[in-house]
This record gives sequence, structure tokens and C-alpha cells, in this order.
Amino acid sequence: MRLPPSAALAHRHARIRESLEALSLDALIVTPPANIRYLSNHAGSAGSLVLTRDAAHLLIDFRYRESVRGLQDSPAACPGLRVWEVPASYEEALLACLTDVGVATVGFEGAHVSVARHEWWRDTIAARGLDIALRSTERIVEQARVIKDASEIDTLREAASRLARVFPAMLRSVRAGETERRIAGVIEATMRDAGYERMAFDTIVASGPHSAMPHYRAGTRVLTAGDLLVLDFGGVLDGYCCDLTRTVSIGSPSREARRVYDAVRDAQQAAVAAVRPGVDSSAVDAAARDVLQERGLGDAFGHGTGHGLGLEVHEEPRVIRRRPDAPSVPLAPGMVFTIEPGAYLPGFGGVRIEDDVLVTDTGCEVLTTVPRELLAL
Amino acid sequence: MRLPPSAALAHRHARIRESLEALSLDALIVTPPANIRYLSNHAGSAGSLVLTRDAAHLLIDFRYRESVRGLQDSPAACPGLRVWEVPASYEEALLACLTDVGVATVGFEGAHVSVARHEWWRDTIAARGLDIALRSTERIVEQARVIKDASEIDTLREAASRLARVFPAMLRSVRAGETERRIAGVIEATMRDAGYERMAFDTIVASGPHSAMPHYRAGTRVLTAGDLLVLDFGGVLDGYCCDLTRTVSIGSPSREARRVYDAVRDAQQAAVAAVRPGVDSSAVDAAARDVLQERGLGDAFGHGTGHGLGLEVHEEPRVIRRRPDAPSVPLAPGMVFTIEPGAYLPGFGGVRIEDDVLVTDTGCEVLTTVPRELLAL
Repeated sequence: MRLPPSAALAHRHARIRESLEALSLDALIVTPPANIRYLSNHAGSAGSLVLTRDAAHLLIDFRYRESVRGLQDSPAACPGLRVWEVPASYEEALLACLTDVGVATVGFEGAHVSVARHEWWRDTIAARGLDIALRSTERIVEQARVIKDASEIDTLREAASRLARVFPAMLRSVRAGETERRIAGVIEATMRDAGYERMAFDTIVASGPHSAMPHYRAGTRVLTAGDLLVLDFGGVLDGYCCDLTRTVSIGSPSREARRVYDAVRDAQQAAVAAVRPGVDSSAVDAAARDVLQERGLGDAFGHGTGHGLGLEVHEEPRVIRRRPDAPSVPLAPGMVFTIEPGAYLPGFGGVRIEDDVLVTDTGCEVLTTVPRELLAL
Repeated sequence: MRLPPSAALAHRHARIRESLEALSLDALIVTPPANIRYLSNHAGSAGSLVLTRDAAHLLIDFRYRESVRGLQDSPAACPGLRVWEVPASYEEALLACLTDVGVATVGFEGAHVSVARHEWWRDTIAARGLDIALRSTERIVEQARVIKDASEIDTLREAASRLARVFPAMLRSVRAGETERRIAGVIEATMRDAGYERMAFDTIVASGPHSAMPHYRAGTRVLTAGDLLVLDFGGVLDGYCCDLTRTVSIGSPSREARRVYDAVRDAQQAAVAAVRPGVDSSAVDAAARDVLQERGLGDAFGHGTGHGLGLEVHEEPRVIRRRPDAPSVPLAPGMVFTIEPGAYLPGFGGVRIEDDVLVTDTGCEVLTTVPRELLAL
């Protein structure tokens, strides 16, 4: 697996430490797996990371001893790493680490720590008379993650570009008589053959009336002539996610199917054309929404236009309608996200078209290069 | 998809309402997808459910309108359901629902609500002068979920029993010269052909030295004569999870490989034999651990012996070492969990053997019926 080099991690640590400095914090407790991985290259389902002004304390259990040892012997070693193997309770180990390291004012991620966990920390610190003050923080690591660095862009570009091989290969199995679930199996086998380590989310193969349900997955329905078929899938390559949707027709599309398809394609292209640095992410959403509104499909598009891609398949930035109470999110070079408007007509069917884009210095690079014309299969 | 009938949901609601009564709560805000599904049969990635003394208020967005409508027209309809379609913000919609329904003392799930979310609720309620008091609750829905009802047991039994077809079918592809990732692809294709809607977790195919890493997944290593090969995979059928691990030998096993295998198998069988109602779950863990200790492999077994299975692949009960500060967890009929001891020797390799069991009135039923002898392939 290709991992970001130690120097990239050092840069990320420096960025987080600027935030610690600004907030007068001695350390940040990092708990979501994607944030831990971003700062350490360690990928595990459990664990915590405590980033201090001069070290990265990783709390792991027995299961990860070997993999962390291997990581630290590689060019992707985490700089300043100190490993704490947790004997029994992660919570006890965390307090032991904070006490031993001697940090007094410690941030935690308010969006990722539960009320119950925080209560245990707070009550135990008080009961033991420890000199630790906990402070809730907001999006410190997420704010860094939203702008991808060079190693991340390389990986995201590669993950998205491989879809150009997968899509035509899997299409050979798409025909009337096959089931949705069988097509999903072909997609997943083709993705694995293309080198993705796993699927980024549950594959969606939604045929006929099912295509009107944006979050349908794949079932036992048999593809039938006249169906619209929504194919939405993505893979993880070296930890990073890609996400693609195409809609095809089984047999010749009806006039109405073609009309809806053209509207969604035009909306999607309008949104892609709106991407450039400085533009608010909601303007990209509006570009797609306006086209669908003009074509009488405004009410048929009920979800957001896109979401960030990176170590997680849904991350910042969200490309959605501007809410009066939400801050604006100006696009900046290095952001990577999906653009995926759709139109869903209950009983008839639906269309969604999705690409992954990178914001560049002057506009945008479309990372997914799969053709966008309506295919009849 | 086979779903629990309305009557089963009514019984679950009654059980939760007993807890509300005992805690003097007018309602419970339910937020994790598995808990929402358990109480409503609605499976979505977003949403909230507010269970009051006489209704179940489901907050969904546009994307789920069609699927909830279909659900409510079926024998699996959620009793007392009222659907609230969220126009923009789930948090605003939740407060609007609580206000409209007129509940004053409302529980939320402390383990599932983040500090940031709770702060927003608390501050907004105060700023608007709403008459709502929020109280953190612990494991109300989880405590109900730990004992499976008849429809759940049927589904879990079917999910586990299908593995008896999958395992021999996928074994035909296991041979020296294949890569781990290719075997993982065969497992996943075979699972899908057997009717599972998706994998329950990332498939583990760990060969040779990789088998010493309990949470390795599957990579590009080529299987080689003399390898131990750990195969750990599971599927989701009608929403419920199964989980199986077998370890095989590529070519003839060495004397040491056989010794480790026999120790783990004996440990696993000892743990299975320890399962019966009233026994503490930690006694099942101890039964496995004692055998490995006797064989000089105590230090080679660093994880817990098992975890509950249901709508989630890791749920209660945990079958782990007894911690001095943790309450005992006596087993009871209707609990379903894995038993999966292992031994991991860095540089040499590892063995893990895992079955899924149901606690019965008198002992235990092993749901996974795949042979346990060491196969040389």
C-alpha cells in the first residue's frame, strides 16, 4: 500500500499544532479512525491519538502491534510517534497517557465524542483530582483534511481514473434478464480486479421503479426492457475513496426517459462548469438545481449536489443548498468532491449522474473520465 | 426482504416504553441507524426516531419517502408511525417534532449523541425558551436488542447456515499461487450468489506472516506452500449479520502449525461448551483463554473471545475478560454471539476459529456448521 510519506505527516502535525497554539491547548485527543489515520498513517478500527506540541501518542491494542511496528520501519513512519499499548480499557489508558505526558489543557473533538464518554472523562478526572481541563473543539482535523496534499491528490486521481477501465468491463454484464444483485456482484468483482482494496460503500444497482429511490441498494428485481438503471459505486485505493454514478437504459429509452436524462446531464455539466476557487460551494449546488428547475424537475431533485471525498466517502465540503444560518464554504484548490444531481419520479424511475472533481488553481479537473451519454444496453 | 412483522415491532415498542415509564420520560430520541431499524423496520443512513408513550415519530428526508411508503403498505409496517419529512436541518426538525408532540422530559442515547450535538440542542432549547428537559440515558434500546426475538433468530439462523454452502464453494479457489485479494473476491462473489445482500465487514484473507495480524485485511501477497491462511468473512441477510473464521493450511502443515491449530480448536470448543443461560459471558472467554494458557499460548491471544451479532456485526454481549469495574453479563436465552479465540505468533503466523452461537434454554446451538478440522489445500 502506498502511504503518504513521513514529511507529509509532519506537515499535517504542524498545521494542527498551529490550531492548538491559537486555542491555547497543550494537546488534542483525536478519536475518529479517519482523523487518526490522517495524522499517523495507522489504519485501525479502534484507538486514540493524542497530538501534543512535540509528539504523537498513539493508543492501540494488541491487535495492531505488528502493523504499527511495520509502519514505523517504513518511509511512511509517523514522526514523533510514541506507542501506548492498551492493557484493558482505552479510557483508562487515555487518562494514564495524559497524566504521564503532563498536559493540562486538552482539546477533544466535540462532534466525535459522545455525551456518555465525555461524562466518564470529566467525572473520573474530578474524582481523582487530576490536573486536566478538557475543552470541546470543532473541526480542527477536518479543516486540514478538506484541502488535499500532493500525495492525497495523486491517490485520489488514480482511484478515480481506474473507473474508466471498470465501467466498460462491467457493462458487458448489463442486460435484460439479469438481476440487480448479480450486476452488483459483477461491479464488485471488477473493482477488486482493478486493485481497489474494498468498496467505498454499498453498491447501488437500482432498476426501473427502484431507480426513483436515491438510496435503494440492489435486490432481486430482474432488469427489463424499458428500465432506467442507476449504477452507483465506488472503491477505496490506498485508503482513498472514489464514487461514480451512471444511469443507462435497458433497451431503447422512452422519450420521457431521454428528456429526464438530458436534464440531469445538463444540470451536472452546469455544476461542473461552476467549480473554481473562491466560488461558494452552494453556488455549485444552485447551478445544478437551476437547470432542473427550468426543466420542470425542481421537485424531483431532493438531495444535495455533492460531498467531499478523501479518507472517507462522505466528508467536507458538502455541496448543498445554502442555509441562512450556515457559514459560506468558498472552494479552494485541493478540495475534492462529487457532483451528482439527479431527478426521481416515483413510479417512473430516476436518473443520477456523478463525477469526482478536484478544484485547481484556475477551475476544476474532472477525475472520473467515464462517458456521460445515455447508453442503451 | 423478509422483515420482522408489525406485531414484533409493537412488542419492542412496549419494552422500550416500560423503560420510559421507569425513568419518568415522555419520549426517547433514537439516533443510531441500527436502533432506528430495530424499532421501525426503516433502514436508512440518516434520520431520527422519537418514541413516545403512544407513537413512533420517524424523521426522514426526501430520499427515503418512497421506501417508507412501501414499508407502511406491508405486513412489516411500523405500528403508530408518524412520518416527518425534514425540509432542511435534521436538528431543527427534531426540535419542531418534540415541540409539536408536546413532550417535556425527553431521553436521548448518551453513547450515541455527540457533545457538539447535545450542546446545540441544549443551547437552542434555552435560547428559544422551549419547555423540554433532555436527559442522557444508557443502553435502553441495546438492552432490548441483546435478546433476539423469534423473527430475528430465524433470520440469524438462516444467515449463518448458508455459510455451509459458501465455504466449500470458495475453497475450490484456494491454492498456492493465488493472491489474498483474489480469494477475497471469490468469497464475496460466492456470498452474493448465496443471497447475502452485502458483506458484514471487510473480508480478511491473511496468509503466512500476515495471519499473525488479527486485523489484517487482504493484500497482494501470493499464497505459498507452508502458509497458514486465515479466512474471516461474514454476510448480511435481511439486515442480520453472520461472521465466520476458518484457518487452513496451504500444503501440508508443519508440526508447529498443527500444534497451534489444535490448541486454538480446543480452546474454541471449550468456550462453546461453556455457553449456557446464567453463566457470565466472561466465563466463556476464560474457558478459551485457560486452554491457550495451558498450551503456552496465553500471550499469543490478545483479543476478546467474541461479540454479539444482530443488526450490527459488533454488538452486545461482548465475550471478554471480566474487568473489575464492569458489571457481570449473565448469558440468557436468545443471545447470539461469536466465539473466536486465536493465537498469533509474529513472523510465524496465526490461527483463528470462529463460530456463531445462540444461547438456548438449556445450553447453546451452534449456528455455523462449517467443519473445524485443519484442511490442507
